[in-house]
Amino acid sequence: MTRVLVINPNSSTDVTASMDRGLDPIRAVCNLSIESVTLPEGPPGIETQAHIDSVVLPVAALIKREAADAYVIACFSDPGLALAREVTAKPVVGIAESSFQMALGLGYRFGIVSIRSVSIPRHLRYVRQVGLSDRIAGDRAIDVGVTELGGASVIDRVVEVGRQLRDEDGADVLILGCAGMGHWREKAEQALGIPVIDPTQAAVSRSVALVSLGYDKVA
Amino acid sequence: MTRVLVINPNSSTDVTASMDRGLDPIRAVCNLSIESVTLPEGPPGIETQAHIDSVVLPVAALIKREAADAYVIACFSDPGLALAREVTAKPVVGIAESSFQMALGLGYRFGIVSIRSVSIPRHLRYVRQVGLSDRIAGDRAIDVGVTELGGASVIDRVVEVGRQLRDEDGADVLILGCAGMGHWREKAEQALGIPVIDPTQAAVSRSVALVSLGYDKVA
Amino acid sequence: MTRVLVINPNSSTDVTASMDRGLDPIRAVCNLSIESVTLPEGPPGIETQAHIDSVVLPVAALIKREAADAYVIACFSDPGLALAREVTAKPVVGIAESSFQMALGLGYRFGIVSIRSVSIPRHLRYVRQVGLSDRIAGDRAIDVGVTELGGASVIDRVVEVGRQLRDEDGADVLILGCAGMGHWREKAEQALGIPVIDPTQAAVSRSVALVSLGYDKVA
Amino acid sequence: MTRVLVINPNSSTDVTASMDRGLDPIRAVCNLSIESVTLPEGPPGIETQAHIDSVVLPVAALIKREAADAYVIACFSDPGLALAREVTAKPVVGIAESSFQMALGLGYRFGIVSIRSVSIPRHLRYVRQVGLSDRIAGDRAIDVGVTELGGASVIDRVVEVGRQLRDEDGADVLILGCAGMGHWREKAEQALGIPVIDPTQAAVSRSVALVSLGYDKVA
Amino acid sequence: MTRVLVINPNSSTDVTASMDRGLDPIRAVCNLSIESVTLPEGPPGIETQAHIDSVVLPVAALIKREAADAYVIACFSDPGLALAREVTAKPVVGIAESSFQMALGLGYRFGIVSIRSVSIPRHLRYVRQVGLSDRIAGDRAIDVGVTELGGASVIDRVVEVGRQLRDEDGADVLILGCAGMGHWREKAEQALGIPVIDPTQAAVSRSVALVSLGYDKVA
Amino acid sequence: MTRVLVINPNSSTDVTASMDRGLDPIRAVCNLSIESVTLPEGPPGIETQAHIDSVVLPVAALIKREAADAYVIACFSDPGLALAREVTAKPVVGIAESSFQMALGLGYRFGIVSIRSVSIPRHLRYVRQVGLSDRIAGDRAIDVGVTELGGASVIDRVVEVGRQLRDEDGADVLILGCAGMGHWREKAEQALGIPVIDPTQAAVSRSVALVSLGYDKVA
Repeated sequence: MTRVLVINPNSSTDVTASMDRGLDPIRAVCNLSIESVTLPEGPPGIETQAHIDSVVLPVAALIKREAADAYVIACFSDPGLALAREVTAKPVVGIAESSFQMALGLGYRFGIVSIRSVSIPRHLRYVRQVGLSDRIAGDRAIDVGVTELGGASVIDRVVEVGRQLRDEDGADVLILGCAGMGHWREKAEQALGIPVIDPTQAAVSRSVALVSLGYDKVA
Repeated sequence: MTRVLVINPNSSTDVTASMDRGLDPIRAVCNLSIESVTLPEGPPGIETQAHIDSVVLPVAALIKREAADAYVIACFSDPGLALAREVTAKPVVGIAESSFQMALGLGYRFGIVSIRSVSIPRHLRYVRQVGLSDRIAGDRAIDVGVTELGGASVIDRVVEVGRQLRDEDGADVLILGCAGMGHWREKAEQALGIPVIDPTQAAVSRSVALVSLGYDKVA
Repeated sequence: MTRVLVINPNSSTDVTASMDRGLDPIRAVCNLSIESVTLPEGPPGIETQAHIDSVVLPVAALIKREAADAYVIACFSDPGLALAREVTAKPVVGIAESSFQMALGLGYRFGIVSIRSVSIPRHLRYVRQVGLSDRIAGDRAIDVGVTELGGASVIDRVVEVGRQLRDEDGADVLILGCAGMGHWREKAEQALGIPVIDPTQAAVSRSVALVSLGYDKVA
Repeated sequence: MTRVLVINPNSSTDVTASMDRGLDPIRAVCNLSIESVTLPEGPPGIETQAHIDSVVLPVAALIKREAADAYVIACFSDPGLALAREVTAKPVVGIAESSFQMALGLGYRFGIVSIRSVSIPRHLRYVRQVGLSDRIAGDRAIDVGVTELGGASVIDRVVEVGRQLRDEDGADVLILGCAGMGHWREKAEQALGIPVIDPTQAAVSRSVALVSLGYDKVA
Repeated sequence: MTRVLVINPNSSTDVTASMDRGLDPIRAVCNLSIESVTLPEGPPGIETQAHIDSVVLPVAALIKREAADAYVIACFSDPGLALAREVTAKPVVGIAESSFQMALGLGYRFGIVSIRSVSIPRHLRYVRQVGLSDRIAGDRAIDVGVTELGGASVIDRVVEVGRQLRDEDGADVLILGCAGMGHWREKAEQALGIPVIDPTQAAVSRSVALVSLGYDKVA
Repeated sequence: MTRVLVINPNSSTDVTASMDRGLDPIRAVCNLSIESVTLPEGPPGIETQAHIDSVVLPVAALIKREAADAYVIACFSDPGLALAREVTAKPVVGIAESSFQMALGLGYRFGIVSIRSVSIPRHLRYVRQVGLSDRIAGDRAIDVGVTELGGASVIDRVVEVGRQLRDEDGADVLILGCAGMGHWREKAEQALGIPVIDPTQAAVSRSVALVSLGYDKVA
């Protein structure tokens, strides 16, 4: 059976479980094995450049040892994506780039709800790198730690920041800028009335399209 | 069962059948009813602005009378897309806009293989309208009539034009700019070595993502 | 005598008369017959996509039956412009595209005063389609019905919205985004101190230039 | 009677006469005094930055001493335009900026036929300055001296260069990049089949629009 | 010894002395003669287009009579830069363009602290001319006369305007938009916490790089 | 004494020595210690993504253990730049980004002479990431291995490729896209007649400016 492997590059199995639950609607429609794994070598959360750079080689190693038809790197900094594409001929997608692409079909300008302010310049560099800077409305942080993302009050900050992105920055679609925030999608959509993207869902949907249509080369 | 309705706005049932066969790889993976219909009021092929404007109201009428969970307008000028989105709350996608979005994930600059030269300025206006003019490498025509697209020699022109788009214009992914050209995807990819997009496949894959993840609002 | 035919695609003769009065300053300088007609098949006001699409074929039919040296489609959604250019070899201009072009010579970033919020995404798509998205400062609606545009209090909303476009969005020239708003140009300019464009004036001035200099092909 | 004053900043009265003849079609339609004058202090032709800078103060002085309702600076480097706008409250337009604006309504990408290669970087800086670099297809020189522009063989070079701009660079409208080249417009259009702009015609047409509609502030 | 000549095109020797003191840190590191001169023909401050145009020929004349290995035109409107590059084969740099280039290496979007509001459109035209309009966050004026720039309260306005550029416009690096403001760099950086550019320092540093590496042609 | 540390992240001491000789013109003018070191952990040449990712942590470790006032990462993929800026408060610059910035002051569109074709998409992503995609004319490879860069015939390929970038792509300034190619600058400039950038020179010149003017934060 065709296998899509979703790699959480941090070591928090709670985050893996939470993002995996968000993939059930895709499983309900598609006959593929969609499997989520945790990178044991990863830090508990990926918050700094040092964290990002520390998982690049381990993610590539995992891909080399785990056979699959498509791989998803499920961290919003898409760590190791370039190397992963060098070590396998199968499609490898990042959740950030996939969420940007999905956003283009749901609105004209997307807003990113980030975890931490320190990540915003990195996100903006990435949006420029993939040539979509005309399509981003803004990027604002809730400033909560990755490991606290399960807390009940987090959704209030997500909605507050989402409202600023919508009303002050002009976003008509929002991206939750962390695999661990994806489970807030439904509540955020209800509160804000515009489409909200769980980036892991976006990446897995894209993987389904790629493998069903037989595309290996991605960019 | 969830139903995706693919509307061929021209009246050529051969074109409908040809593009429908291209959807089998999606059916193999996804448990959805994907159904293709022909617009009886449409012209045999949509080649002029008069053709395009003549199907706008009939496409909207068909959508109003046929219940579905998502609609695909399967003509590369995306005729009546704005009106269709006004008459139904379900997602409606065009094959041109969907192919542009898929192209962003397969390469950096896409080339369009058009049927007729006269359509090129219209395509370019459309690419600008959706904000992607930095991502198009070029648009070149094979200059063959829509109703002759089944002819065996057509693929030679597709490959010739595709090579120009790749080598002279710098395209790293190609879009076949007509629902009736989609069946040449495999041969074109083999000859050219870069990803080639059947726009109807792109639109249906996108519809599967939209309905499985519960998005109604598209743009 | 050279004839410029100005077509109001809605059926409100009051709007036709109001916009026609705005053309007197052009008549005072130019020896051309500038004539305004009402499209009998049009709706009282063009506010929805269904309204726009309903007048496309009638506008083209009117152009085919009425000989003129240039045609102006006097509705800010420029309905049927592509088709009109296909059915006649004479220049056909829309009032929206003409107002954008005039704005480029009066300021650096233009603001659009729209009638209804629902039209704003359509305007923005159009500005992108003609490649001028770097030049638009903003688009804001007064949210008054087309048929109420003659009301005395409308100018207060126009000025209020114009002030926001000027002060918050950075517009240095304004476009009144409806043929039926053109008569507020003078009062708006006095109140705001920046150039304000009556789009029908812009389109007729452009037509005068085109016919006097012998241009048929427009874009 | 409303007066439009067209200033040739070089001292060649032949050039003044030639460009003035190109204004007759506008005079045929519009009841304005359109008058061309030669700047006695100007060099025979404006080819270097030193030439441009030498006429800035004399052009401003001429404008201060000659009353008119609108002024046209008829040299393709638009010398002294900023200063001219500072010394009079009447509209002052340059022929280069006016030709760019007219080009936007005649095609999507304009090509400039320049006299000398050395001017091309200056033209490109100017196109960027007015925010239209996405709309220029190319700029190529015929490399003939300004004072030789009356020669019969010049048109062959204009057509040759125009063909390169059209076929290699993708221009769909051409601008003759010198007041003294304007009289080749008709022959160039016949040979090339796309609109060609005489920049002095463009500037005077724009002035007619500005004065008839009562605009003082231009940009 | 290699000589960099810094030309203050206004006649205020106080401004020359003030900006010259800002060059001492460069002198401390580099073995070059860096010399500042005042243009006697200049106005006391350069605030209008007439001021700018009045110094173009005198600056070129000064460059012709003063031998140096590189020239800096130390006024933020870079007056006469094009002509200066025509009259000498040595590199000539303007302080505005040099500050834009330095800003690109210190942040992503720069803000300009201008002296007078009337200069802002001119600055914006210039930023567009050099192709950097995507990198400017904003331009705001302190509205103080050039000759009053030595006043102690000026720094308060600089900081106030800098804070608006940083917090409202999103600037992450600031440019002091006048040679006479450069001495406020240190205080502004301490108050605002982001890099601040003295444009004369930027131009002289660039000149040092150009002459040490042997570049003549600049752009 | 102020110290600029130039790090060659590959282990070829020949490359280190070659690029270090290119810094002598800067040493001749500036009183700084400019010192080049080789990263012992690096591969002989950095040609693949795996090579790049393998030096990220070692470069950061070297910076942590070697005190300096500014650091230059002397490989054209700027490996580990983001992490390096996280581990030290001193300015760290990459030679690629520095060469882009220098190019902006030497021409309008730069061309990159790359070693290998496989690096070109990575370079283009980087140019987009730093927001300069409007300024790149092209990127072409000589397709010679890093360790063969000392060979005498390499300059012929550099000139051949440089000529294509200049004549076909419109570059008016060239960047040698590898620290190991820098010593060809002089010969390339003589053969091509446009400025050529040795990226290590560009980065060290920028470092001199940064440390002399006291900037810590770079971007």
